[in-house]
Amino acid sequence: MGFWGIEVKPNNPYPYHADNVQGKLHITQATLGLGSSTEKSILQCSIGHKKPVFLCSLLPDKIESCPLNLEFDVDDLVSFSVLGSRSIHISGFFVADDEDDLRD
Amino acid sequence: MGFWGIEVKPNNPYPYHADNVQGKLHITQATLGLGSSTEKSILQCSIGHKKPVFLCSLLPDKIESCPLNLEFDVDDLVSFSVLGSRSIHISGFFVADDEDDLRD
Amino acid sequence: MGFWGIEVKPNNPYPYHADNVQGKLHITQATLGLGSSTEKSILQCSIGHKKPVFLCSLLPDKIESCPLNLEFDVDDLVSFSVLGSRSIHISGFFVADDEDDLRD
Amino acid sequence: MGFWGIEVKPNNPYPYHADNVQGKLHITQATLGLGSSTEKSILQCSIGHKKPVFLCSLLPDKIESCPLNLEFDVDDLVSFSVLGSRSIHISGFFVADDEDDLRD
Amino acid sequence: MGFWGIEVKPNNPYPYHADNVQGKLHITQATLGLGSSTEKSILQCSIGHKKPVFLCSLLPDKIESCPLNLEFDVDDLVSFSVLGSRSIHISGFFVADDEDDLRD
Repeated sequence: MGFWGIEVKPNNPYPYHADNVQGKLHITQATLGLGSSTEKSILQCSIGHKKPVFLCSLLPDKIESCPLNLEFDVDDLVSFSVLGSRSIHISGFFVADDEDDLRD
Repeated sequence: MGFWGIEVKPNNPYPYHADNVQGKLHITQATLGLGSSTEKSILQCSIGHKKPVFLCSLLPDKIESCPLNLEFDVDDLVSFSVLGSRSIHISGFFVADDEDDLRD
Repeated sequence: MGFWGIEVKPNNPYPYHADNVQGKLHITQATLGLGSSTEKSILQCSIGHKKPVFLCSLLPDKIESCPLNLEFDVDDLVSFSVLGSRSIHISGFFVADDEDDLRD
Repeated sequence: MGFWGIEVKPNNPYPYHADNVQGKLHITQATLGLGSSTEKSILQCSIGHKKPVFLCSLLPDKIESCPLNLEFDVDDLVSFSVLGSRSIHISGFFVADDEDDLRD
Repeated sequence: MGFWGIEVKPNNPYPYHADNVQGKLHITQATLGLGSSTEKSILQCSIGHKKPVFLCSLLPDKIESCPLNLEFDVDDLVSFSVLGSRSIHISGFFVADDEDDLRD
């Protein structure tokens, strides 16, 4: 297990790779990055070439954090991207498969 | 397991189908879609012909995302719909039954 | 398992009954009902004749939804009620006992 | 299992006792009590004589509810208290140990 | 198991140590500390010398609490820090490994 976090920048989709470690990624939080724009930033997720789905919408100086609850397997091919001019930090934790076996 | 997400549009209820895969759908987030209307959009869920129940109410430029925590089986017959003029994106993840067996 | 939702109306407490099905009810969300009053509505829960405890407070046009995380057994005798003039929709899902056995 | 809820009043810390029942208390929600003060109320938790830690800060007419996720055992010696002039209701559910065994 | 909480102060990163107890720390809440500054405070987490990732952004008098959902093992080497002039209290609970075995 371990902390996991990335910064998703505008115009720079982040494809999720599990780095050859079998396990499950839990994404649990999104927080607006630094910047002066007061326009909202939307975090979205897409699978393959499907139309992206919005995960959360962050409003500068109003609501800058949002809890999430997503789980991904190593085999999932997803990509995170941002609509808007400020980045979004997403974080959570990774549980490797053998830990999971031990746990259950 | 895999990411799951749809956009529920006004006047266009979305019936949940599990596509013949036995498993459980976890719906964990709702986010307001794009648009210029400043009126709120309400996500609701109904079973059969019962009166729909509100799941969340999203307020443009105030609160545009809401965490949810719902679980559905393949046998559940539910329908999601939106009250208001802007769509609502709902997302989460699907756990197939054999994964669930492995997990527990 | 199945979706569960009700509308709790002012001046009309809702006693929880499990309808003779052994299992566990998870209540995960509360959302303000329709109406023009701008005063807050408070959802409360009471056991027997004890003083009710507030579960959430919803503010029209500010915060109209609130995540909850409550679990009830068939043997629990609780009653939900609303303080204020607008109803509150509460929702979640029911897991029957044998499903639970299968799951674990 | 059963619903659990208390009202923590200003100047009146609430020590948690498990009433000799072995089990685990899940505290999942905090909601501001009634009152006319517009100053914030902060819920805090302390262990023994350690400095209290803030659990949530509730702002009248802005944010009056907050989800929590805390688990306590019968052996934990904690005390809840409120900074501010309005009380805070905290709620959740209790799972007795033998239920827990049955469940898992 | 037991309650866990700390206050992370500006300019004073807090490295997480598990105090030689094997187990898992669940961090579930962040709340803004006292102070008169109206500028936001951001909680961030870093692993080793990697760039920190934002966990939540708290806005005085608007949003002063934020639910989190993070799990850490004894072997994780993480450090929490604050951007801004007011401290952030983080809290949750610790589950020792043998409890976890008993539970599952």
